[in-house]
Amino acid sequence: MTDRRRVQRIHQGERGFRADTLIVEEPLEIQLNGEPLSVTMRTPGDDVDLALGWLYAEGIITSFEDVVTAKHCMDSDLNVLDVRLRPHIAVPDRAGRGFTVSGACGTCGTSSLEALREVTAKAVRWPIRDDAAPVDPVALTALPDRLRGSQKAFARTGGVHAAGLYAPDGTELAVREDVGRHNAVDKIVGERLRAGALPLAGHVLMVSGRVGYEIVQKAAMAGIPVLAAVSAPSTLAVDLAAELGMTLVGFLRGDSMNVYTGTSRTSSSQAASSA
Amino acid sequence: MTDRRRVQRIHQGERGFRADTLIVEEPLEIQLNGEPLSVTMRTPGDDVDLALGWLYAEGIITSFEDVVTAKHCMDSDLNVLDVRLRPHIAVPDRAGRGFTVSGACGTCGTSSLEALREVTAKAVRWPIRDDAAPVDPVALTALPDRLRGSQKAFARTGGVHAAGLYAPDGTELAVREDVGRHNAVDKIVGERLRAGALPLAGHVLMVSGRVGYEIVQKAAMAGIPVLAAVSAPSTLAVDLAAELGMTLVGFLRGDSMNVYTGTSRTSSSQAASSA
Repeated sequence: MTDRRRVQRIHQGERGFRADTLIVEEPLEIQLNGEPLSVTMRTPGDDVDLALGWLYAEGIITSFEDVVTAKHCMDSDLNVLDVRLRPHIAVPDRAGRGFTVSGACGTCGTSSLEALREVTAKAVRWPIRDDAAPVDPVALTALPDRLRGSQKAFARTGGVHAAGLYAPDGTELAVREDVGRHNAVDKIVGERLRAGALPLAGHVLMVSGRVGYEIVQKAAMAGIPVLAAVSAPSTLAVDLAAELGMTLVGFLRGDSMNVYTGTSRTSSSQAASSA
Repeated sequence: MTDRRRVQRIHQGERGFRADTLIVEEPLEIQLNGEPLSVTMRTPGDDVDLALGWLYAEGIITSFEDVVTAKHCMDSDLNVLDVRLRPHIAVPDRAGRGFTVSGACGTCGTSSLEALREVTAKAVRWPIRDDAAPVDPVALTALPDRLRGSQKAFARTGGVHAAGLYAPDGTELAVREDVGRHNAVDKIVGERLRAGALPLAGHVLMVSGRVGYEIVQKAAMAGIPVLAAVSAPSTLAVDLAAELGMTLVGFLRGDSMNVYTGTSRTSSSQAASSA
């Protein structure tokens, strides 16, 4: 996941050369049934999980049952991964990174924002609103340090995104690091999809950076009710989380946090008594 | 660029509600000649620059002369922007975010990484290697604070990416903030494209976060010889910058920095004497 390069270090006017450890970035081409569908820049590793998680978030597959095989094309090129789907699965004409460019968004006069929300609402399979178990804010405040403690590549490079999945009892189930923050989430969801463990009711997803629309969408599609981040969410992330009944926590630092949506989980008597 | 939402603030076990300012995120659909090409999540504002900068980075347009009109489809929907090109400009069949999924990458057995580099090498129009003017490291150390000082949305939200463009004499030419860091760069390049100011020889591009392949590619295509970042580059970013003769600076913090490539610019006698 990391590699070294020679670097000129300048500090207080002094110059010197040394080795520096960097996070690896390479393109992964995802093919569906032998046809190229998408190219994404990613940190190599867990490529099958990345592809499956991405296909799931795009709504192209809905379970591991839809997949016949998923493997690198050749041992000599680990940057092309081919996924073969069961014959009844419709293969999209084309897909952008994050979501498909659909005809529904394409007509002037249709609100693309509204169309996007409709697409997402249809794609989200699990009614998160029904899973309103309380969340202990004290337990949440422990997550940033736990995530950071599991970030092996960050410790070596000082610059890589991460996502961590935590079970209802607080167990750390998976941590993935990647140059792309969406990839880290896709890798986690893809692994759980393979394990037949979706939906992830009662789970918490913690991300190292900011939260945009697509991160909320990916978490929601995996049935994750609580999404926490070290940094800020966007307006659309908050609005989508509210609509879907998720609890979205931002600026989770030290013993403080902002709960943007789903505050019933953090305000319940159980959550309050344990805080 | 910002909007407010109600938030539950939890601090040391105390709960309260207050208003919080968030960065706006909305989808922009870019159409070419009335046909949808791409959807990108962005912070509204400078949409024409974003679209032109993105089309330029994709290699679809090479100058403002290629563009007949670029405008929002309707006043009622500012999330669809239609660009009309001169008849001789080839419209791609499809495009992903960042770069086009090309047939060249699509064949098992072809190295997709190699194909990607060939595409980029062809797309980069200016020989940056020839522009080897020295860079004063002391001038670079001033940029993070200058950029931060111009980040109005960051000051209100605490969470948004930024890019700043600095002329050879150090003048701040443009600062753009966006939920997407690639968008901030596209908006800057798009504005300079409209102004007929490309290539940006001798300029410095400063970004608030990390540097991946696509940021280097976008800077190189605009002819920018020096790219500086507050955080870490990836391996592919460093390798591409080296190949193209760019100076890539990372971890630019306080009076320190790592110069990953193009150290002849920061090691010259002129640069050394002014440090």
